[in-house]
Amino acid sequence: MGKIAMVIEYDGSQYHGIQVQNNAHTVQAEVEHCIYCLTGEKVSILFAGRTDAGVHAWGQVIAFDTNATIPAPRWKPALNSFLPADIKVVKSAKCLDDFHPQYMAVEKEYIYRIYRRTEGSVFYRNYALCNTEPLDIEAMQKACLFIEGCHNFKAFCASGSTVKNHERMVYRCQIVDEEPFLNLKIEANGFLYNMVRIIMGTILAVGRGRYPPEKIVSIIKSQDRSQAGATVPPQGLYLSKVIYPEKYAF
Amino acid sequence: MGKIAMVIEYDGSQYHGIQVQNNAHTVQAEVEHCIYCLTGEKVSILFAGRTDAGVHAWGQVIAFDTNATIPAPRWKPALNSFLPADIKVVKSAKCLDDFHPQYMAVEKEYIYRIYRRTEGSVFYRNYALCNTEPLDIEAMQKACLFIEGCHNFKAFCASGSTVKNHERMVYRCQIVDEEPFLNLKIEANGFLYNMVRIIMGTILAVGRGRYPPEKIVSIIKSQDRSQAGATVPPQGLYLSKVIYPEKYAF
Repeated sequence: MGKIAMVIEYDGSQYHGIQVQNNAHTVQAEVEHCIYCLTGEKVSILFAGRTDAGVHAWGQVIAFDTNATIPAPRWKPALNSFLPADIKVVKSAKCLDDFHPQYMAVEKEYIYRIYRRTEGSVFYRNYALCNTEPLDIEAMQKACLFIEGCHNFKAFCASGSTVKNHERMVYRCQIVDEEPFLNLKIEANGFLYNMVRIIMGTILAVGRGRYPPEKIVSIIKSQDRSQAGATVPPQGLYLSKVIYPEKYAF
Repeated sequence: MGKIAMVIEYDGSQYHGIQVQNNAHTVQAEVEHCIYCLTGEKVSILFAGRTDAGVHAWGQVIAFDTNATIPAPRWKPALNSFLPADIKVVKSAKCLDDFHPQYMAVEKEYIYRIYRRTEGSVFYRNYALCNTEPLDIEAMQKACLFIEGCHNFKAFCASGSTVKNHERMVYRCQIVDEEPFLNLKIEANGFLYNMVRIIMGTILAVGRGRYPPEKIVSIIKSQDRSQAGATVPPQGLYLSKVIYPEKYAF
């Protein structure tokens, strides 16, 4: 009976990312399986942002076509009763038939969390980067300003990526001190593969005094992946928000 | 070379409690195994508070005798390098030979966390009670005041317990609103089996309007377990602090 869109959250710790793969436990496969249990339909879900193994989401958006007669708002409790404890529907609504959660998105926000304590944390080991070194937060905040704007982010894209256009518009890039966490919030019109994790690794290198904030400018200019910092581990990363134009908002 | 005391934290999700049991994965067995890997010694650790399956700790205290020549402060990094990611030594120090982490404790603090959101949370399902109903926080705070003081807490003790003396001194019992969490903080000279979880269940019943805060007085007086509320699940509970007299402080 048309197309359903959902905001979902998941704890990515136990998944090999969102996208269906052979012989791997993925969020997409789990959700599709639960829709099958609920309706008997074999659907293919579309999603807004491809998240890797161990990456989490508060605000992932998915959509799928269905012939089931479940009213759109009832999809949330109905599907939640089938989903495992680490995936949850936050909202369900009807959407336009041509809605695609990735292609129609005008903005996405990711958050990367660092937990600052000498000993790390048994509670956040799967939910943050447990950083033990002292960090120059002011330098990191300054570095963020050089990320904002429209740039070719090829230096911040995983080297295996086959994408052609590396230009992205970063609307906001901020380091927010929320003791005991230090959070990177980044909003853009789109992200390259591993872009947030490489930006975080580079800003972390600035925080550790490996190079000055201004170095970001020449790293961007180089378009050379080897100039940027390391790719930080996935467990600190959260897809937090996806924004759509008025027409597709739900 | 004497006795070592440690503050440890653990994520209890994957353990059948702290205390060694046959054929069960416990925190004690894991720590003793790691001490064996580090020193070759088979030690028996003593601990301050017996935590059940799924219960966590920020500030559990353990102690053990050792002949190893590792300086006391070095025990922390040395043992951490063997411990799994869900158990961590926060502090290690030398202590008096007659120190017993349970018997010498003069005060313990537990925290019980409730996560308030309609949908629950994929991130806190193992770390809080995910409560979905509206709660009367003022009534809960009032109920807490009746818990404070020296009382016979038999009504708040799991019925299987064999302990003889049910009198305990509760120094502080507080409901703290820390959005999106609602935390119970309780400090006492000691706790009966399941006492915090039954107190939380009873205060939750007050928050849900099942009975007024004053009912706590008659529940205490009854010394009857069936008068108090349900035992809330273990995953919201944390042993957060253990205090010792000056002589044993470390």
